[in-house]
Amino acid sequence: MTAQAPLSAEVRVRKLAAAFPVVRERSMTLAQPLSDEDCCVQSMPDASPAKWHLAHTTWFFETFILERFEADFQPFHPAFRVLFNSYYEGVGEQHPRAQRGLLTRPSLAEVRAYRLNVDQRLQRLLSAMLPSAASHALASLLELGLQHEQQHQELLLTDIKHLLSLNPLKPPYLLDGRPESDRQSITPAPLCWQPFEAGIVEVGHAGQGFFFDNERPRHRQFVERFSIASRLVSNGEYLAFVEAGAYQNPLLWLAAGWEWVVQQNLTHPLYWQKSYTQFDSAWQEFTLHGLQPLALNDAVTHLSFFEAEAYARWAGARLPTEAEWECAAAANAASQDADYFGIAWQWTGSSYAPYPGYVPQEGAVGEYNGKFMVNQYVLRGSSSATPPGHARLSYRNFFPATARWQFSGIRLARS
Amino acid sequence: MTAQAPLSAEVRVRKLAAAFPVVRERSMTLAQPLSDEDCCVQSMPDASPAKWHLAHTTWFFETFILERFEADFQPFHPAFRVLFNSYYEGVGEQHPRAQRGLLTRPSLAEVRAYRLNVDQRLQRLLSAMLPSAASHALASLLELGLQHEQQHQELLLTDIKHLLSLNPLKPPYLLDGRPESDRQSITPAPLCWQPFEAGIVEVGHAGQGFFFDNERPRHRQFVERFSIASRLVSNGEYLAFVEAGAYQNPLLWLAAGWEWVVQQNLTHPLYWQKSYTQFDSAWQEFTLHGLQPLALNDAVTHLSFFEAEAYARWAGARLPTEAEWECAAAANAASQDADYFGIAWQWTGSSYAPYPGYVPQEGAVGEYNGKFMVNQYVLRGSSSATPPGHARLSYRNFFPATARWQFSGIRLARS
Amino acid sequence: MTAQAPLSAEVRVRKLAAAFPVVRERSMTLAQPLSDEDCCVQSMPDASPAKWHLAHTTWFFETFILERFEADFQPFHPAFRVLFNSYYEGVGEQHPRAQRGLLTRPSLAEVRAYRLNVDQRLQRLLSAMLPSAASHALASLLELGLQHEQQHQELLLTDIKHLLSLNPLKPPYLLDGRPESDRQSITPAPLCWQPFEAGIVEVGHAGQGFFFDNERPRHRQFVERFSIASRLVSNGEYLAFVEAGAYQNPLLWLAAGWEWVVQQNLTHPLYWQKSYTQFDSAWQEFTLHGLQPLALNDAVTHLSFFEAEAYARWAGARLPTEAEWECAAAANAASQDADYFGIAWQWTGSSYAPYPGYVPQEGAVGEYNGKFMVNQYVLRGSSSATPPGHARLSYRNFFPATARWQFSGIRLARS
Amino acid sequence: MTAQAPLSAEVRVRKLAAAFPVVRERSMTLAQPLSDEDCCVQSMPDASPAKWHLAHTTWFFETFILERFEADFQPFHPAFRVLFNSYYEGVGEQHPRAQRGLLTRPSLAEVRAYRLNVDQRLQRLLSAMLPSAASHALASLLELGLQHEQQHQELLLTDIKHLLSLNPLKPPYLLDGRPESDRQSITPAPLCWQPFEAGIVEVGHAGQGFFFDNERPRHRQFVERFSIASRLVSNGEYLAFVEAGAYQNPLLWLAAGWEWVVQQNLTHPLYWQKSYTQFDSAWQEFTLHGLQPLALNDAVTHLSFFEAEAYARWAGARLPTEAEWECAAAANAASQDADYFGIAWQWTGSSYAPYPGYVPQEGAVGEYNGKFMVNQYVLRGSSSATPPGHARLSYRNFFPATARWQFSGIRLARS
Repeated sequence: MTAQAPLSAEVRVRKLAAAFPVVRERSMTLAQPLSDEDCCVQSMPDASPAKWHLAHTTWFFETFILERFEADFQPFHPAFRVLFNSYYEGVGEQHPRAQRGLLTRPSLAEVRAYRLNVDQRLQRLLSAMLPSAASHALASLLELGLQHEQQHQELLLTDIKHLLSLNPLKPPYLLDGRPESDRQSITPAPLCWQPFEAGIVEVGHAGQGFFFDNERPRHRQFVERFSIASRLVSNGEYLAFVEAGAYQNPLLWLAAGWEWVVQQNLTHPLYWQKSYTQFDSAWQEFTLHGLQPLALNDAVTHLSFFEAEAYARWAGARLPTEAEWECAAAANAASQDADYFGIAWQWTGSSYAPYPGYVPQEGAVGEYNGKFMVNQYVLRGSSSATPPGHARLSYRNFFPATARWQFSGIRLARS
Repeated sequence: MTAQAPLSAEVRVRKLAAAFPVVRERSMTLAQPLSDEDCCVQSMPDASPAKWHLAHTTWFFETFILERFEADFQPFHPAFRVLFNSYYEGVGEQHPRAQRGLLTRPSLAEVRAYRLNVDQRLQRLLSAMLPSAASHALASLLELGLQHEQQHQELLLTDIKHLLSLNPLKPPYLLDGRPESDRQSITPAPLCWQPFEAGIVEVGHAGQGFFFDNERPRHRQFVERFSIASRLVSNGEYLAFVEAGAYQNPLLWLAAGWEWVVQQNLTHPLYWQKSYTQFDSAWQEFTLHGLQPLALNDAVTHLSFFEAEAYARWAGARLPTEAEWECAAAANAASQDADYFGIAWQWTGSSYAPYPGYVPQEGAVGEYNGKFMVNQYVLRGSSSATPPGHARLSYRNFFPATARWQFSGIRLARS
Repeated sequence: MTAQAPLSAEVRVRKLAAAFPVVRERSMTLAQPLSDEDCCVQSMPDASPAKWHLAHTTWFFETFILERFEADFQPFHPAFRVLFNSYYEGVGEQHPRAQRGLLTRPSLAEVRAYRLNVDQRLQRLLSAMLPSAASHALASLLELGLQHEQQHQELLLTDIKHLLSLNPLKPPYLLDGRPESDRQSITPAPLCWQPFEAGIVEVGHAGQGFFFDNERPRHRQFVERFSIASRLVSNGEYLAFVEAGAYQNPLLWLAAGWEWVVQQNLTHPLYWQKSYTQFDSAWQEFTLHGLQPLALNDAVTHLSFFEAEAYARWAGARLPTEAEWECAAAANAASQDADYFGIAWQWTGSSYAPYPGYVPQEGAVGEYNGKFMVNQYVLRGSSSATPPGHARLSYRNFFPATARWQFSGIRLARS
Repeated sequence: MTAQAPLSAEVRVRKLAAAFPVVRERSMTLAQPLSDEDCCVQSMPDASPAKWHLAHTTWFFETFILERFEADFQPFHPAFRVLFNSYYEGVGEQHPRAQRGLLTRPSLAEVRAYRLNVDQRLQRLLSAMLPSAASHALASLLELGLQHEQQHQELLLTDIKHLLSLNPLKPPYLLDGRPESDRQSITPAPLCWQPFEAGIVEVGHAGQGFFFDNERPRHRQFVERFSIASRLVSNGEYLAFVEAGAYQNPLLWLAAGWEWVVQQNLTHPLYWQKSYTQFDSAWQEFTLHGLQPLALNDAVTHLSFFEAEAYARWAGARLPTEAEWECAAAANAASQDADYFGIAWQWTGSSYAPYPGYVPQEGAVGEYNGKFMVNQYVLRGSSSATPPGHARLSYRNFFPATARWQFSGIRLARS
């Protein structure tokens, strides 16, 4: 949805029609280094196959736009309405999430044909004349669909990284010679603390650009004085935590975090491993380029909330709240060095909850955000895997406290 | 701990020494209607046997007070340090929580002897002269121990109710003729909405009485305008929700809540059951007095956060935040009719998190609250099972979103 | 049931009426060292509380005898029909097995009253005159009930041993000064091999005494030549297996056995534990007398089929088949030294299956044996916990391959 | 291995060298209707991806033959030794069974190259001159490898059928126009009973052809008199069992079978489904040709042991023992009509156990059979999916009592 757009419906649709093929094409580009097999398999219930991402994002346009606006709508394939419905109860039944990886049919080629078909029909629709009210509704759904596809582009990368990491061959996603796409190196300056005074701040989306319903309403919060770290925590700093025995010390963890560490028998972050030679050992990290020596000056990533929170305690600090983070990110908008965006999502200490006065979007798309507002923690910023132009100050990403397969890191705060 | 107590250490100790036998005696009184067998069995990992409650509260005094202040301290039984340690990693190992019900030994008689022994040693300690600093430390721990025992008194009731409810004989805890102890009836007035204007409020414990570390620091929050219900939701109102098919309608629930409803195959609150005769059916509720006809004018209780949240959505409302609740409860302090206290704990929409500037208490007792601040939701007020004098405005109770065996109900709010 | 009994119905009933109080009394004697709490708790779904054993054996007489033969039959308590039904689908619903330990009511005192009531009604019935056909039917069911109660007497001991073993206090069942009741010491003679020639043997119950339906029909089997060990395997011998690294070596185990060892993280038999002092370590074993030094000349007991089978492989031998065991036990009937009976049940390599021509007993009691004939392995002989007079040559005990809490040991064989 | 082969080593090797490309080629032919995606995915832990079957059968030749006989052996890929080791602990570590479907790499093309490479090296080896003893050893392992590959050909079909059945599109494996390959139709004659007299029979492999170690030694068994059915049970007959409410009646099932029915909420065989139209309903069955109307005159297949055993009880019969089946199959060797082979594997009532005097094959291949001899039931005969020439009288197939995805059916017997 777009806030009080002063643009005419015609202009909105024209701009989005131009963006549409670019976003759609980018999904195909991301899948390009992958084989049909890579695209089909599901590594865990929380992750989805790349093919499923390609189909589901198409389903979103077909179901929420074509079905509503296309005269004589016919589904591309009647079974796809269920197969590629993620979680919209208002649309109807869903193929079981944990069985997405069993769908060897439709083939990747058929999914490509599905994409092509829906793209063509959408472009035909966009070039037709519609009454202004309908045009605005169309534009809003189209923009939502493009933002939705960009979210899945990041998920496609995190999901494929997870799949490849479980393969003992540790295959890279990115072949040699391709430009580096998951830069996580940070300014190796000493960490310092930027202070903020107590006061009322405004939080949530402002202005006219796109936003998800969970970023609204913009509202006031009272924030007590706090300081925030000038940069993200590095692999090298997190390594000191690991080597200090943190994964063996219950006193550093939340009770539920410690239970999780013990049950999963964890001793280090998800993609780290220690390789042993006869006389030596060395830490390595699985990356989209395959297994690499642990880069001590990179931001630490792929941490759960539990790990981030325990690290903060060990470091004599804490995670920032959403409001603190948003305040600080706004203040640092001009500085690239602070890495609020583009390196790693930053866990906050805030559970994912509705803003005061929150109203979900109307219709089935209203299930997009609101129904997940329990037992999840908010991450702010964006990561190296976030599509260009997708990040913004008020963006609220969220995952359960145990989720580790996202590009998630740590920015410290203290009172 | 006690806020800047102007009382002398001597006076504090004297007052607490007077309260000590009263609180301790009340635990034994609660266990009085129970057989040795009732006291030993554990109905689920989340619940504890009554005998374990009686022993653990004693262990708390022995470990945190006698071990520190008693000259020539000798443990009552060396194994009890592990057996009755609930979750204090700083104290050492713990008997596995799910196996508390296997402890047929020590017997209930031995646990009674343990209580008597610790009570006598504590009273000897309290009557001795201590330096003022030590007296203050002792007083603080003693007060914490008494508040801790009161919390377990409520848990003893909820846990025994759960155990008895699983017995097909549906035995009552309270025998006929005893005074009613779990009054939940509410004023059957029409529900109306009390409005509050936006503004900065102060939240958290103020003044000199006892508080848990999680109620501090008192701090400022900005609260947007809201309204709050004049009374709790009744069984009759919740029944309308049940009979409207709420447990069959995914659109009313948080996604995780709906998953839980489906997996557990739920169709009504925990202690409700429908009894069928040849021509009729009737709702009943298991209570501490055994199975009873559902009292439509009682407050609905024993709801999970998921159920409370779904009911609120169905009713076109929402749960209040902690700050809203505290604000409204303060404003209604003079009115008994609003039932902020003494009927049912009230789920808030706030996840359990540290207040800005929160510092856990020093030492092993610092594990009391802080380490549970994740994936739990706050309940405010108090219930019919809360010991007299234990409730207060800033009290933060907390349970996971699926917990149903507490005396937990609903007060609605809206923006 | 009794094979072609030449005794008159009257004589049969008279003999059984004399045995009845003796067997019934023995159950109460076994429960005598136990507190009400000990009798109520269930240590795992496979085990039952002592109180449940006392009630269920009574239920057996009430349901299968009184309900059929008593004029004006009234149940002692209508709920008991479900509460104490173990698994008889023909009788109706059953209280869930895993929840037997939640039944703090009826109390142990009420169960004692239940026993007394049923005993008195049965004795009244037995002293009445019945037509001969009814008397025979009554006698058969009475005998089955007494044998059934004897089986539960052994289970009561194994179940209570399991419960007490999980208590960190390691309480003994038998107090000092009481006569030893679980003798497992064996003749420390060198193990030698007793040879048998190939040939047709008869297997199954012969003669006129009592038998369970699974021991019939007596039938022919061809047994190839084999040898069988002159005594049971000792703790000392099994210790050599443990110390040879057997629990770390997959090549010694059946595939499913190795999976079980790994999943359960097993390193020794169920009731063994290694205690460490500063300079030394020593093996101990939990017994009905509490924790004791491991007695190297006792028969090794409390082994699963998987452990027995792996030991046999390691020792260059195998487990005997049922037919081999029965053959050898018959040949050693005169010798007490071979310990076929009274020390430990002996795992055979035979899965529990119907004999050719097997017909289950008529009526609901037909569920006694036949419906368990899958995924279980037969044990032969009897143990130190088997009631006097209950053992016989054709007796077929059976448990799943992972069961360890019975008094189960090893007698080796080879081809 | 081959029994006392009178053939010279040279002749044996020459014959097997001729069979080798035929068997190997057939695996590729079976995979031909499948896409790369179909070949990669694993539908459940018990099933393996087609690609894994193609690689593992190749691994068998590389590991057990090339590694031993090839001069200057170099593995095709060092990681494959672990990746494609199924369960040979003697060879070393194994990639976790439940994660076979995560191996998107190596690709199907790489696995094809692996097959080609090993085929060429094996053929080079077979054309070289070896000393006679080595030639015999080579011939034995080569024959084992070919038989092993044939077993996996059947598994490839059952596993791919399972995968496709879980796809809501219900895709056929066999395209229209291809010759039918899973004929299960049986002679629709009335079922009659063929009697056999009691006596000693010889059981197990005789003569000179190939056998697995579990078919030996040939030995004597005494078989009591029995009758066996003249044909397999049909879909139509099993449908009567279903429609008689069998899946709702605990009295028809083994206790463990009933527990399984209830837990899995089963109401019909694995691949059956009932389709509903407005006025009617009809049974359908998923086949390798996709979803088809239930063919009443086909043999019922894809039954578990529990279902087969319950059906037999309902029909007033039982399952034959292994010895009975072998006896009857030998007597019917001349008759094609009795369908002992080529339609459906036939559950016996015999648990999978070693024959008297059983000795596993030497070396790591000795893990092929023996270590699975627990908690499995034997099936005899062969199915429509068994490769031509692979079946024989003494063949012992085996699966757990709950396995339903094999072509497993019922032949009745009675005493």
